Amino acid sequence: MARKRVMSGMRVTGTLHIGHWLGVLSNWVRLQEEHDCFFALADWHMLTTGAADTSKIRENTRGMLLDWLAVGVDPEKATVYVQSAVPEIAELALLLGMITPVPWLQRNPTVKEQIQDLHLDEERVGYGLLGYPVLQAADILVMLGQSVPVGRDQLPHLELSRDIARRFNALYAPLFPEPEGLLTETPLVVGLDGRKMSKSYGNDIRLGASAEDIASKVMAAITDPARQRRHDPGHPEVCTIYALWHLFKSPGVERVAYDCRLGTLGCVDDKRQLASSIEELIAPIRERREKFARDPERLDAILANGNARARKAAMATMEQVRSAMRLNDFSAASPALPA
Amino acid sequence: MARKRVMSGMRVTGTLHIGHWLGVLSNWVRLQEEHDCFFALADWHMLTTGAADTSKIRENTRGMLLDWLAVGVDPEKATVYVQSAVPEIAELALLLGMITPVPWLQRNPTVKEQIQDLHLDEERVGYGLLGYPVLQAADILVMLGQSVPVGRDQLPHLELSRDIARRFNALYAPLFPEPEGLLTETPLVVGLDGRKMSKSYGNDIRLGASAEDIASKVMAAITDPARQRRHDPGHPEVCTIYALWHLFKSPGVERVAYDCRLGTLGCVDDKRQLASSIEELIAPIRERREKFARDPERLDAILANGNARARKAAMATMEQVRSAMRLNDFSAASPALPA
Repeated sequence: MARKRVMSGMRVTGTLHIGHWLGVLSNWVRLQEEHDCFFALADWHMLTTGAADTSKIRENTRGMLLDWLAVGVDPEKATVYVQSAVPEIAELALLLGMITPVPWLQRNPTVKEQIQDLHLDEERVGYGLLGYPVLQAADILVMLGQSVPVGRDQLPHLELSRDIARRFNALYAPLFPEPEGLLTETPLVVGLDGRKMSKSYGNDIRLGASAEDIASKVMAAITDPARQRRHDPGHPEVCTIYALWHLFKSPGVERVAYDCRLGTLGCVDDKRQLASSIEELIAPIRERREKFARDPERLDAILANGNARARKAAMATMEQVRSAMRLNDFSAASPALPA
Repeated sequence: MARKRVMSGMRVTGTLHIGHWLGVLSNWVRLQEEHDCFFALADWHMLTTGAADTSKIRENTRGMLLDWLAVGVDPEKATVYVQSAVPEIAELALLLGMITPVPWLQRNPTVKEQIQDLHLDEERVGYGLLGYPVLQAADILVMLGQSVPVGRDQLPHLELSRDIARRFNALYAPLFPEPEGLLTETPLVVGLDGRKMSKSYGNDIRLGASAEDIASKVMAAITDPARQRRHDPGHPEVCTIYALWHLFKSPGVERVAYDCRLGTLGCVDDKRQLASSIEELIAPIRERREKFARDPERLDAILANGNARARKAAMATMEQVRSAMRLNDFSAASPALPA
């Protein structure tokens, strides 16, 4: 079976937590074994809603790279690159925008949601926010991505990329694969307060968390509110700690539930055991993260190599795009003068 | 006085006519003597309304370059380049789009007009058409343009470029000059049927027109409809031929008006004289045009040189833009791998 071209990326929002790992990155680590993977550190996408404060973009780009490397994303197997290091993406976004009707974008449920979430009034919606699905299509199509790992809620985005690819192919030449969603069974990762794990709720455990961080966060978590005394029988199905146990598919999880229901395992002991179980998982990740963090030159080399590989693929695509669209193509003939 | 940076351009719509020359290019030829001029062959802008048929873009780019050179635009004095040969323009357009509110664009009178003119229903307005003022701002700002020669009707566009520059400068760093309109006394060039001269009306005289073309077009023109017989007194103020005489500021124009009013100069003779007067003006332009057309290698060299100069300026600007916005900047560190 031919290796499929897989394209995915993350906005460089900041350091990642175990939710990202279990939900997304562990899947990437599997995919890189069998497919030709392109993983983008999407820095331009931060500007669609965050143009007013760009102060963290550089730091977050490197921080996110560290997290990826720490969980096992392997730059020898996958092409790991920074979106803005591939200017061909901006060029393709410009061209694809010309064939994307505005109403396709206005109907995008995610843009509508973001506008609500950010309490943006319509006067403040940026042209870049309206057009972020066009940029996303350019991200995928410039790499000739065939498969895009997505959660079920992200399928509408990808549909728009498929629509744009289809329109390009019909107007000019059948150049782009219509990227298919690789639906991944993404577990809902609950945070320590029972809501979805998210940095903005403060209920997350970062991938680089220290043993103390983990312990103090887990010890403060909410368990079964009906269980008031140590020997009361517990209800694991309403308990955040149990949900986390379950998530890790730990072999001990059934035992924990059994003892909890009997009232023989108290919440404090339960939490201690979970904290130590999470620490066991996080410790090697944290160590790898720290090792990479101590070697900035290696990080530079990883990015330089990944960026160059990504650009090579993107430049080859753009040559075909310009030819299919019968545009001028001076990319070979007119290099910049030396500065 | 320091030389001002002047930026202007034309969409590569096709070969030009004397209206473009008298209205725009003659002004450029003056400006290039005193200013640091950047003149763009705007090929990407063709896609905002013409993405469905791109078959003429390459031909029109070279045809328009020939017209520019023929009337005296001098690539030794001005930087003449193709927009799409400067990918930094697409990158800057992407970034500026992030800080441009959609309502600024929706209120743009020119976009509204184009939608009406093209009988586009709202479903078919492209994201690129909505955002063409953002691309135009990128065209100007990437070259740090200070002055933009415009007709009075184009001032609202430029206002949007100024708004975008101002917002960038306020958010990040005062990098961009707010480009000022160089209001040029643009004569309204009437075509041979009394309407505005335009290729789409078929009432134009192309800059490369042959003597026969000129004669047959002028002879078919509409004059004073009240003048039915040779010796009837004419009314120059309603006559297209007189309007064209006037336009060329020919020293003979008062004499023509005088003789017409008296009825001593008939329309046919009047037209013959105008045709020969236009031929006198066009002949050297046509010859220069043909000379350049016979030398495609020279054209290539002119574009290669202009494109490289334009890129050099654009790359320097983008380095400052990325730094002001605190974005990642891998432009120096990660060149593309050799293909």
